[in-house]
Amino acid sequence: MLVDSPTLAFPGLLTDSPTDTGTDMADQSWQTPQAFRQGIAHLAGGVTVVTSCDDDGARFGVTTTSVCALSMDPPTLVACIRRRSKLGRNLGRTRRFCVNVLSCRQRAVAEAFAGTRGVEQDRFRHGRWAPGVTGLPVLEDTLASFECAIDLVYGYPNHLIVIGSVQNVVRTAEAADPLVYVSRKFTHVDQFGAAMAAAN
Amino acid sequence: MLVDSPTLAFPGLLTDSPTDTGTDMADQSWQTPQAFRQGIAHLAGGVTVVTSCDDDGARFGVTTTSVCALSMDPPTLVACIRRRSKLGRNLGRTRRFCVNVLSCRQRAVAEAFAGTRGVEQDRFRHGRWAPGVTGLPVLEDTLASFECAIDLVYGYPNHLIVIGSVQNVVRTAEAADPLVYVSRKFTHVDQFGAAMAAAN
Repeated sequence: MLVDSPTLAFPGLLTDSPTDTGTDMADQSWQTPQAFRQGIAHLAGGVTVVTSCDDDGARFGVTTTSVCALSMDPPTLVACIRRRSKLGRNLGRTRRFCVNVLSCRQRAVAEAFAGTRGVEQDRFRHGRWAPGVTGLPVLEDTLASFECAIDLVYGYPNHLIVIGSVQNVVRTAEAADPLVYVSRKFTHVDQFGAAMAAAN
Repeated sequence: MLVDSPTLAFPGLLTDSPTDTGTDMADQSWQTPQAFRQGIAHLAGGVTVVTSCDDDGARFGVTTTSVCALSMDPPTLVACIRRRSKLGRNLGRTRRFCVNVLSCRQRAVAEAFAGTRGVEQDRFRHGRWAPGVTGLPVLEDTLASFECAIDLVYGYPNHLIVIGSVQNVVRTAEAADPLVYVSRKFTHVDQFGAAMAAAN
């Protein structure tokens, strides 16, 4: 897929001078970067394991919540991957990746691919893995898995912003709550939450 | 901020021919794009309202779950915004945006900025809004709000991938559950989920 204008550049910082509004809001303002880590912890994210593999059978994968839908048609995803991760170092060769959306029963897999359990080469021992129709490592019993061809990669100092064109969607019939990461903890959505929120 | 290699191009589709593995997984495979919308609904997302404003006082905003952290240092966010939304049409002028992370008490604001309640010009009547230290529209009582300068915008056919350099973090002291959108419903995280997941 072609992009019509890959770099609409808005370089640098705000040119407007900040306005001190003198409201209560000012009392709650924190300066970055020290506050960012604490603030962003409140952005809940569905937990995914992003995987790839090369032609020699080597597999790579990381746990991340930094995946989001870009467009429905054409089906496109965005994933933010650390450059220095094994996955990040190999995406230029493999040119493809799979986003596996984990259920609340797959917390151990999330921890393994986050590097908090075992060493890198043991990650795929956690969970049941099989090649998808494009050959990518697909985790069984996910809520959904998306096999993607890399359309574009934007390089940032320490991260890659990877745009994936979805080639195949794998879904299991079984219903389960999604695994969510927020406030530096794994949790899952409240099945009764919709009713509670509706009552507000 | 400069990016070292804005376009590491991986154009087009997979060059590898798909391998039919003949496993059970094949029975669960769905073809895109018709399945993508159903599959991606299972990716839970923290609900945000992304706002901006111009020098004439016009304010713009949309509800989206397509926001994620890119890097902690420097503090950077990625937001995917529809080109044709009022916000998308104006980001080139305003060169800045604010990500407001909503709590479960702010569902009505989420609905207003999703366009499901009222008309566009009435959106800011929902919730209490005040200018942040950079002048951007900041919603009160969010879990966190991030005032950002636009660093780069990547243009996709119908969407903009906007990279924001965080200039200011606003946080309220009050603790509340995050508002989450999954399976096409608003919900919130289960406060007891961490304990349940730990028991698995």
